[in-house]
Amino acid sequence: MDYFPSSLEVLIEKFATLPGIGQKTAQRLAFFVLSLPDSEAISFAQAILDAKKSVSCCVVCQNLTDKELCTICSSTRREPGIICVVSDPKGVLAIERSHEYGGRYHVLHGVISPMNNVGPDDIRINELVARVADGDISEVIMATNPDTEGETTARYISRLISPFGVKVTRLAYGIPVGSSLEFADDATLMRALEGRMEM
Amino acid sequence: MDYFPSSLEVLIEKFATLPGIGQKTAQRLAFFVLSLPDSEAISFAQAILDAKKSVSCCVVCQNLTDKELCTICSSTRREPGIICVVSDPKGVLAIERSHEYGGRYHVLHGVISPMNNVGPDDIRINELVARVADGDISEVIMATNPDTEGETTARYISRLISPFGVKVTRLAYGIPVGSSLEFADDATLMRALEGRMEM
Repeated sequence: MDYFPSSLEVLIEKFATLPGIGQKTAQRLAFFVLSLPDSEAISFAQAILDAKKSVSCCVVCQNLTDKELCTICSSTRREPGIICVVSDPKGVLAIERSHEYGGRYHVLHGVISPMNNVGPDDIRINELVARVADGDISEVIMATNPDTEGETTARYISRLISPFGVKVTRLAYGIPVGSSLEFADDATLMRALEGRMEM
Repeated sequence: MDYFPSSLEVLIEKFATLPGIGQKTAQRLAFFVLSLPDSEAISFAQAILDAKKSVSCCVVCQNLTDKELCTICSSTRREPGIICVVSDPKGVLAIERSHEYGGRYHVLHGVISPMNNVGPDDIRINELVARVADGDISEVIMATNPDTEGETTARYISRLISPFGVKVTRLAYGIPVGSSLEFADDATLMRALEGRMEM
């Protein structure tokens, strides 16, 4: 297939390496980029380079930041004694959207997953243990995803940090607000019953 | 939302401008790019710049190329007297996939669409007329998409070039190979009946 110039083929290939982007979509995206004005295409390329160069992990919570400390860790309005543990930066975004949480975070950048060769040392668990060992932490809220790997990771971390006398909690399981009982799966209903609260 | 560093926000915005890419997908793509090794991210950015810089339109058929003449127009093995008119470079790819066509192409880069403010002068019709006027063209095959705009464009071009004594044809309409009669729409069935051939 040399119907397209080689540089266009290369660009299509690059787009096709992105997650969830197949060959057809990659073609569409590459054609779109070609149709952009020069300045737009250059600023797209520059955005990739800039983000890659300037984004690193916060030295405290491991969330993505372009400074040494992320905005949440450097804020004086956030409760420093509470840590919410999430598996990735999108988790921070999700919790922040609820406007309910005033503490800090710890981003693991993954979950323990023997199937994918990810062990406890491959994610940022040691950094979390160090924060807890440093003291002044009153509660650690586990907010990894409610799947097997997220559960395993939460349990592993819980066992690791409870000796420090810190309170370890887990986000509540239950039926989602606005959903219908009819469509809730058995496991969720079981958890919702277990976690029932007095009205 | 300043939970992400600004350069990451910029990258997410850039991805979100691509066609068919929403905010969530843009986030996923940006995170993926951040997770790439430096060299990979740089070569992604470079691919955009390279494609944008080196790709232009073939001076004859207007297909994308990185030379003055595209590979098809510069090939001596393609019949120069037959031109297949497609609306965009993906059309060339589609026809080439059939391995049935040995002529050359003309890429319009669009279709006439008054709804979108695209008139005959906004697409490469004049270049096609010039090719036909130059002589030595025996047949022009209209292969624009079988929708209203593609049809209109084909008819418009046909009226424009038939005075030059060139044979103007249209890709056959009919039921797709491998499909089921049951699911063919009325218009397609009507065209399939009209175009029936002796066995």
